[in-house]
Amino acid sequence: MNKIEHIGIAVKSLKSSNALFSKLFGETAYREEAVLSEKVNTSFFKIGETKIELLEATDKDSAINKFIEKKGEGIHHIAFHVDDILAEVARLKSEGFTVLNDTPKVGADNKWVIFLHPKTTNGVLIELCQEIKR
Amino acid sequence: MNKIEHIGIAVKSLKSSNALFSKLFGETAYREEAVLSEKVNTSFFKIGETKIELLEATDKDSAINKFIEKKGEGIHHIAFHVDDILAEVARLKSEGFTVLNDTPKVGADNKWVIFLHPKTTNGVLIELCQEIKR
Repeated sequence: MNKIEHIGIAVKSLKSSNALFSKLFGETAYREEAVLSEKVNTSFFKIGETKIELLEATDKDSAINKFIEKKGEGIHHIAFHVDDILAEVARLKSEGFTVLNDTPKVGADNKWVIFLHPKTTNGVLIELCQEIKR
Repeated sequence: MNKIEHIGIAVKSLKSSNALFSKLFGETAYREEAVLSEKVNTSFFKIGETKIELLEATDKDSAINKFIEKKGEGIHHIAFHVDDILAEVARLKSEGFTVLNDTPKVGADNKWVIFLHPKTTNGVLIELCQEIKR
């Protein structure tokens, strides 16, 4: 884990939150992307070496919708960049952490992603992500 | 706002969470500090250009204790580094954001800090921080 790749924030409306965060940062989102597998629309803002990702559910079954129903809008996860996601997951499992998905999924912004279970990480949903090489 | 200075995580026990995050990151906290004004003990882990700050309440009146009672352990705030905190707060107020403290407070790690009200920022508690020059 050599840097924080992004921080994910669950929002009800991507349109109104894009406007809000544009005012906050003084610049607009540089990318918007639908992630069909996760049933979310996303937008990204660049801050130094990391990013803020806004996530809006496109379906009531989306994890983002369930999160908002339970906790309201707010910070959803922290994503750490790793060079070798499978090696890092093997290391973390040997340390007692558990994962939500064993096989990397395709996430937003051209990444392989694996989530750690928040029950083993002080209630923090942690995503590991590695650039997909094509 | 030119970088994410740190991400604050509310924990019940700094000692056990220091051990947990040391396993997660593969290295130990580089700094521990009591912030008397906020009634917290903190520890810091370096990740690229940013940091993870763990926060443990030292009093039941601490905001961290109230947060954990309401939401459980987890991500508490995002702190953005700014060069001129008063100018940035003036800009944000003109954009409709509200602050929790008008006058900068002394935070952990030698910083002036001002918090934005999460009701105006999609439920995200945002801290602005500027290095204290001595």
